[in-house]
Amino acid sequence: MRGYTFYAKVSRVFQTYPSLSKLLVVSTVGGGSLLAFSDDRPFQTVLNDAGQKPECKKKKVVVLGTGWAATSFLKNLKSDSYEVQVVSPRNYFAFTPLLPSVTSGTVEARSVVEPIRNIVRKRGYQIDFMEAECLKIDASKKILHCKSAQVTNLGGKGEFIMDYDILIIAVGAQVNTFNTPGVSEYAHFLKEVEDAQKLRNTVIDCFERASLPSVSDEERKRILHFVVVGGGPVGVEFAAELHDIVVQDISKLYPSVSNLAKITLLEAGDHILNMYDKRISQFAETKFQRDGIDLKTGSMVTKVSEKDVSTKDRATGQCSTLPYGLVVWSTGIAPRPVILDFMKQIGQGSRRVLATDEWLRVEGCDNVYALGDCATINQRKVMEDISAIFGQAKTNDTGHLNKQEFREVIGDITERYPQVELYLKKSKVKNMVALLDNYEGEIDIEKFEKALSEVDTQMKNLPATAQVAAQQGEYLAKCFNRMEKCEMYPEGPRRFRTSGQHRFHPFRYKHFGQFAPLGGEQTAAQLPGDWVSIGHSTQWLWYSVYASKLVSWRTRMLVVSDWFRRYTFGRDTSRI
Amino acid sequence: MRGYTFYAKVSRVFQTYPSLSKLLVVSTVGGGSLLAFSDDRPFQTVLNDAGQKPECKKKKVVVLGTGWAATSFLKNLKSDSYEVQVVSPRNYFAFTPLLPSVTSGTVEARSVVEPIRNIVRKRGYQIDFMEAECLKIDASKKILHCKSAQVTNLGGKGEFIMDYDILIIAVGAQVNTFNTPGVSEYAHFLKEVEDAQKLRNTVIDCFERASLPSVSDEERKRILHFVVVGGGPVGVEFAAELHDIVVQDISKLYPSVSNLAKITLLEAGDHILNMYDKRISQFAETKFQRDGIDLKTGSMVTKVSEKDVSTKDRATGQCSTLPYGLVVWSTGIAPRPVILDFMKQIGQGSRRVLATDEWLRVEGCDNVYALGDCATINQRKVMEDISAIFGQAKTNDTGHLNKQEFREVIGDITERYPQVELYLKKSKVKNMVALLDNYEGEIDIEKFEKALSEVDTQMKNLPATAQVAAQQGEYLAKCFNRMEKCEMYPEGPRRFRTSGQHRFHPFRYKHFGQFAPLGGEQTAAQLPGDWVSIGHSTQWLWYSVYASKLVSWRTRMLVVSDWFRRYTFGRDTSRI
Repeated sequence: MRGYTFYAKVSRVFQTYPSLSKLLVVSTVGGGSLLAFSDDRPFQTVLNDAGQKPECKKKKVVVLGTGWAATSFLKNLKSDSYEVQVVSPRNYFAFTPLLPSVTSGTVEARSVVEPIRNIVRKRGYQIDFMEAECLKIDASKKILHCKSAQVTNLGGKGEFIMDYDILIIAVGAQVNTFNTPGVSEYAHFLKEVEDAQKLRNTVIDCFERASLPSVSDEERKRILHFVVVGGGPVGVEFAAELHDIVVQDISKLYPSVSNLAKITLLEAGDHILNMYDKRISQFAETKFQRDGIDLKTGSMVTKVSEKDVSTKDRATGQCSTLPYGLVVWSTGIAPRPVILDFMKQIGQGSRRVLATDEWLRVEGCDNVYALGDCATINQRKVMEDISAIFGQAKTNDTGHLNKQEFREVIGDITERYPQVELYLKKSKVKNMVALLDNYEGEIDIEKFEKALSEVDTQMKNLPATAQVAAQQGEYLAKCFNRMEKCEMYPEGPRRFRTSGQHRFHPFRYKHFGQFAPLGGEQTAAQLPGDWVSIGHSTQWLWYSVYASKLVSWRTRMLVVSDWFRRYTFGRDTSRI
Repeated sequence: MRGYTFYAKVSRVFQTYPSLSKLLVVSTVGGGSLLAFSDDRPFQTVLNDAGQKPECKKKKVVVLGTGWAATSFLKNLKSDSYEVQVVSPRNYFAFTPLLPSVTSGTVEARSVVEPIRNIVRKRGYQIDFMEAECLKIDASKKILHCKSAQVTNLGGKGEFIMDYDILIIAVGAQVNTFNTPGVSEYAHFLKEVEDAQKLRNTVIDCFERASLPSVSDEERKRILHFVVVGGGPVGVEFAAELHDIVVQDISKLYPSVSNLAKITLLEAGDHILNMYDKRISQFAETKFQRDGIDLKTGSMVTKVSEKDVSTKDRATGQCSTLPYGLVVWSTGIAPRPVILDFMKQIGQGSRRVLATDEWLRVEGCDNVYALGDCATINQRKVMEDISAIFGQAKTNDTGHLNKQEFREVIGDITERYPQVELYLKKSKVKNMVALLDNYEGEIDIEKFEKALSEVDTQMKNLPATAQVAAQQGEYLAKCFNRMEKCEMYPEGPRRFRTSGQHRFHPFRYKHFGQFAPLGGEQTAAQLPGDWVSIGHSTQWLWYSVYASKLVSWRTRMLVVSDWFRRYTFGRDTSRI
């Protein structure tokens, strides 16, 4: 009890001086100059006055999920306007970027999770949390079919039905096996905390098994062959962590077999980390070669069997098999079954991913929002609305638009259609008015259409990252917090097809940079403005940013002490 | 790599000044006055000169187990005289006294384990460790049938056969269900690290399940009824930890259901903690009553079904059923199947536990030693040897023994038969000679027998505790280290039945005291010399002793930081 008192006191200090929070992290981690990335605000809680009664019945908001998007939403929501219920099979939030570190024991699983009840409690309000999985969304009746996530003998099936006024879908995605045979049976994944824990034990399993006297040398080599499929950030980081643990820890504890260990990284594309700058890809490839990690690009996996991975070279068509002891599958994501079923109900059955508009509202469905990895924003094309834009822009009665009129809607256009800005930047055009400069005389609808015809080529889907999900959650919570106010005083861009204004500004993603840890205290980072940073100092940037981004002071302390422990004592290879 | 260098340097300092090690622990924990209990020597490693060749073929010693006894043996053995192989299904040593703390998350599972390879590596030599379970000991052929402990798809069954010159059995024991129906299906245990992890998650499961909307109020009460069977130290500590987590953490995170939680402790005897001093039992019972833990003594469990525990009152014979959500079974230990099979082979089939002599050698079998919970020392009775003792003591040719002659063998008798000393103490006799004072005239064999006839009533089996196992491991290792020397210059007591001396002193247990944590920062301790200490200060003694006893500096740091974290942030209730 005293513990909480102490903690509460400290919290209060941080609430009063929020900047202290940043300072402490940075002084803990030692990356003083890297403050820019730390934007956590764990202690700016919203304290509702106890006993405050709502004037009318609150709307019931059900949130599905406790990942980045859902947690960010819950952290930013002022719940006194809503009755919030959360349904998720995991009763905790996991700091997923550290999962590859969990596989090697650099960081403990417990250090990267925080109970969702704890996160919300700190915000000063109670939510109803239900540890259950939503099996079916019935959008027509506004109800959810849920089932308890536990496999226990606590009795009953744990099934129940919930209704909602507003639904927030943030259930994330599942691993995409591309229907490759054998993957779901034999491969390991790296998506959930449990996956990481299982992987950690399986790596130790392999070395223990290889140390048994009954194993032949050939078998030993097979068992110690670790195959990673997918050269994205997760696969690359796992391969790097694995290499580190073998070189730094396993070699000391399993000296008789550690030299047989081999890591192979298979990537279907031409380069690993191909979503990053070329310099980063190249650096990673060179480093991996130097480390003895066997990098096979242009290599597609066709089948996984109990002891072999079958691959096909994309260029030559040549097939080969690799005997393995452990295979990790990390090639991308696919929608969960509950989402696929929901998409069919609302007429999105032909799409691959659930689509929302720019305000994160699910298309074809009222009062349902979707964010994070389970949805993509279906950015509206300029060309679809071109005549409506023309019509709204032109205030005179002629069929022509003059530049002055055009200038007045430019703000609304750039806000509503973010591809415009990207197009201007890419084609190095000074501003939108300049697009019309090529056309002489007055601008009619045809000229206008022609001038903007190339803009939609710059439409981009957002990456399925924690950063995007977290920003979407925060954005949506802020919209919810100002729902009533913005209903009366809309602040969004002009509605081109009808009249008036949108209630809110559409969601806009701000890219703060991305890391690719490469092992051996080397990290690459792609920062905003095409700035690339690689090496040992970037590792410290990484430590600093990740420590500051962690969800609570508890996890922050744990992760930092895990790093310290790894540095001092090495990693723990107990198989528990 | 640098990490190890830093660590190695620090280690060297502690090797040079071993007392520093104690100092640091105590200053970490803050229990300055409690130094007497800290006798760890983690850094007094024995460094063999590299390249030192053995002169003749080394004897092959196989150790079964990585628990207290085996690890203590390995830590104290100078392996340059032996070729050591270790077989155990667990590749780590677990600090079992902290397992009840793991169930509540006060301490993390990872913090109480240390890889056995790491422990041995620090001793400066390599052992062959095999992560496997010994399924059968074939003492006639001197071979072991083993099987890999893993359930993986690594290929092969992982079965193999090993031979040995000397076998050390330290496999521990398993839970004793007393054949009560339903226990192995429905009850949880608290014996291994996995048990503790599972228990932790199941406690959270119960609260999550009770929070679901589909559950009736009656069902909710059942799910939150925690039944602990067995009022020994483990059961009591688990009940206390459970009470703490409910009061301190659950009540904040599950406010709607936490008040329904109820803990019942069932004990077949008349008192809980009946192996301790009465004052401790009474204090514990009063504290539990105050805490609202339902204590039912004299209550035997007859059956466990999916949702109910059936009990029978020992006094009244009344039967009743208790609906439960979680039942923890902690009533005692029984031999493992491999030991039972081995006992049949060597003619111990009719015994309940594997018997060794006072030098820990298995009776009826050469070159096999057994220690820890898997065996008991079959203390030799004075009465069995009474005529041999008489014959050896008397040096004259008459049929009588004089007191001077008797005095000369007293040392050997008290060493060989520890019950003698206990008897003298209990019957308040000054010394052994005084035993003969009641008899007038010269002592013949009949009088001698009569004088010592009551001595054997004081024979006691050692308790199945970590402390006994650890002392046995250390004792045996020290015997092994001086095997050759003691073969030539025996140092043990006189052999009464044959001639000459025993090679070694028999094993003698030194009791350093025992703790019983009772929750709420209250601990009871029974210290040597019938000294009892109860209360808050004893909790600090407990912290101090346990921190100092931990097997490595890594685990020490982790456990201390776990305590700090619990104190500051509360316990983690994530279900992973």
